[in-house]
This record gives sequence, structure tokens and C-alpha cells, in this order.
Amino acid sequence: MAIPDEDFHPVATGQAAKTVEAHQAPQDVVFYAGWFCPFVQRVWITLEERGIPYQYQEINPYKREAHFLEINPKGLVPAIEHKGRGLYESLVLCEFLEDAFPDPTNEPHLLPADPIDRGHARIWVDYAAKVVVPAHSRLIQAQGAERQRAALEEYYAALRTFAAQIRGPWFLGEQFSLVDVALAPWMVRDWVVAEHRGFSRAAVGNGWKEYVDRLERRESIVKTTSERQHLEVIYGRYLRDEAQSEQAKAIRAGKTF
Amino acid sequence: MAIPDEDFHPVATGQAAKTVEAHQAPQDVVFYAGWFCPFVQRVWITLEERGIPYQYQEINPYKREAHFLEINPKGLVPAIEHKGRGLYESLVLCEFLEDAFPDPTNEPHLLPADPIDRGHARIWVDYAAKVVVPAHSRLIQAQGAERQRAALEEYYAALRTFAAQIRGPWFLGEQFSLVDVALAPWMVRDWVVAEHRGFSRAAVGNGWKEYVDRLERRESIVKTTSERQHLEVIYGRYLRDEAQSEQAKAIRAGKTF
Repeated sequence: MAIPDEDFHPVATGQAAKTVEAHQAPQDVVFYAGWFCPFVQRVWITLEERGIPYQYQEINPYKREAHFLEINPKGLVPAIEHKGRGLYESLVLCEFLEDAFPDPTNEPHLLPADPIDRGHARIWVDYAAKVVVPAHSRLIQAQGAERQRAALEEYYAALRTFAAQIRGPWFLGEQFSLVDVALAPWMVRDWVVAEHRGFSRAAVGNGWKEYVDRLERRESIVKTTSERQHLEVIYGRYLRDEAQSEQAKAIRAGKTF
Repeated sequence: MAIPDEDFHPVATGQAAKTVEAHQAPQDVVFYAGWFCPFVQRVWITLEERGIPYQYQEINPYKREAHFLEINPKGLVPAIEHKGRGLYESLVLCEFLEDAFPDPTNEPHLLPADPIDRGHARIWVDYAAKVVVPAHSRLIQAQGAERQRAALEEYYAALRTFAAQIRGPWFLGEQFSLVDVALAPWMVRDWVVAEHRGFSRAAVGNGWKEYVDRLERRESIVKTTSERQHLEVIYGRYLRDEAQSEQAKAIRAGKTF
């Protein structure tokens, strides 16, 4: 949902508004964001977890300025400017923050140090991106009882495969990692599918409810979450399959994004 | 095409057979492969480029042994066993080889050292994986003149976006990188779509023909390529959309893989 439709609230609210306010001073890292976007939240969680200094800059997708388009020619958030150079794509940005800030004072890292363990984490980051998030989007956009039922089953199946691998308390065990970050923004918005598509955390099984409850209490996630009422306006369009974002159109066409 | 259909040649041929023969001795890295698979070739090219010692082990997808299923529970190649621990997924394995063999004697690396440059490379690795390879698969499996024409246009469009970013001689410039590796196995098999779908390297434009001609001459690619006649048997099933691999079924269902 990189670009919302019209009539959306222009800035972060609630806890997230306080975090934005605390990150207005110029820094080497400029974080181009949209408060509503789950892809943005992946990067925002990473910045908060790692304690990396950053300047938050809200981008209005309908008023994108020339400088922002130099940073990301696609015009999408999230994007980062680091000492004048730009980069984009949420998971690429999370890996960038690992690479660019190896200073041990920025511990903990979000990827394990051991190469095989890193690879294992990347397999499941990829699973979140390629299987869970698209299944979530199809569920949101599904129209009609039969299609919604099928999409809900597909979504449960995707989550159960993931849930079966959780070591607890976090996906990799004691270390909160990029695997948790890759999925968290959608999981803490699951009230949307609970209210409109009959989804239930408990029905996933395998400790899923407890895992998502923990995610909801994680400080970096609390600090980057806005109020529901403003998200509801954006999700309304998706739930009626009227959204015009690139992602919404791709899902409607049966493609990936 | 992680799992081919029946009646395929069981082992590598031509230049690739010599490379297999030279990598039979036990090593810390055991490379579980299928000679025919483009995903496997990504990892194989990486091993050859980096000069990492490895033991090649051909996996017959219809006779998967218990030990291999411990390395990759999904039962798919490519997979790597490193000092007794397993990992899989082609691009995860390429990143693993970067992480696990940082020794400068294994230069050149396939990812740039600068974090922003690494991120830029990962954006285009991702584009190869999420846009070009699925478009290629849809073209191969498309049935009927109208669908084949549409799939060919989609494939050209995907390649032109990529081609416009090539700095030359390789994607990132002088450094042969993971971006080239991520796409090369499909590009050097483009005789399949040239013969059966009317594809032409020259029609892509923007130096594409010259770029793929260079890929075809790259030593690591030459050394990991088998004879066409044996690949043709496998591709025949895909061209008639009769293939039963997981990827073929996903493409047929309009999903990603």
C-alpha cells in the first residue's frame, strides 16, 4: 500500500506522532516515510531497534517533490537518503542499515552473525514477503463470501507454516530479528481482517496469538504505530477493492508486487 | 524449474561435465545441484567466480535420499551443506557465500563493499527474481498465438527496464556482480524462447545483445553450462505447458513462486 487513496490523514498520530516529533533534526540518515504504510514501518522499526539517528520526513504521495524523486525515481516510500545518496525498497533498506551501521554501539543487530543463521533468517524474511504479505493483500481485497473464505484459508495456511518455525519468544529465539520485522506491520494491523474477514489470531494455532501479542507490545512497534481510526479510512478502499495503489492493482490483476 | 519431469538426462554434459568431474573430492562446502536448473546455476557461477572449494553432488529429484532432505526439507536444489549444516534458496545461498567466505584471497566479491552500492545491487537482483524470471516462465508456458504475443511483449518490457540500467560491460560497470549472476542462467538459455516464441536479443535494444553475448563468454558461465540437446528435452514439457514442477504449476495458476 505504498500509495494510499485520497482523503487520508496527512501525518502520523498517537505514539507515532511523538516519535516523528522527536526525529525532526537533520541527520546523516533522512527517512522518507508515509505514516500509514506497513513497508515503511519495517524500516522505521529497524531504525528504532538499532538506535540509529535519523530525520523523519513525511512524503505526501500526491505532492512528491523533485528532490524526493531524485532519491527514489519510483516515487515510493520508504526511501532513505544517506549523506546525499538515495536507496529504496523496504527490505533492501533494512539490510542497508545492517551494512552501514556495523558499529557495536548500535547493537543489537537484526541479522545473526553466523552466515548459515543469516541465511536461515533470509529464507523466512523472503517467505514473509513472497507468501504471507501477498496472501494478506488478497484477503483484504477479496470480494464476495466464497472468495473471501478461500482467501482466508490461504492466509491461515501461510501463517501456520510460519508459526510452526517460531522458536520463541521471537522467530529466531531470544534474538528479535529481521524476520519479525518483515512481518510485524501486517500482524499488528490484523484487526482489519478480524473485523472484516472473520480472521482470528487464536485460530492460527501454534502459539500464534501469543507471538503477535508480544509483537504488539514491542517498544519499536508501539512507537511507530498510529491510531486505528485514521488507518481505517485507508483500509476501507482496499476492503471494497477500490484502491488504486500499485500494489492494489497488481493484486487485482493476479500478479505479485 | 527446480524439479524437471521424467526422461531427462541424469548428469551434466559438455563443459559442465568437466567441471563436475573436477569437484568430486570432499570439501567443507557440499553443493547439491541439478545440472539443468537455472537456479542451481546461479550458485554454481558464484562458487566458480569466487574460487570457493566445493564438492559437487548431483541430486536426482526422483530419488532424494534422507540425508539430502535433512539439508533441505523442501527437497529442492540448489542446497548447500557447510560443515554439516544446511541452507537453500539460490539467492540466499549466493549471499551466504559472500558472508561465509570474506577472506580476501577469495576476491572478487559479487556484492559491492559500499552499503548504498550493495543496496542498489540488491534492488536489481530482486528485480531479476521478481519481474524478469516470472515473465520468462510465463512466456515459456504461454499457449496460443495471442497469449504468446502478450507474454513476449511483457518479457521484452521487463528486459528493457533492466537493460536501461546496465553500465557496461557488466550491470554495475567493471565489477561482475550478483545482479549479472541472478539473471545470467535464463539469458544464456534464450535460444529456447528464440526458437519457440519469436524472441530476439537484438529486439530488446539498448546494448542487450552485446551484454548477453558477453555473459555467454564469461568463464564461470561457460564452465557450468551443459549441452543444449539435453536441455531441450526438459524445456519441451514447459513449452507445451505440461511440466509438473512446483514452479510450472505456480505460473499456470497465475501465482508467483
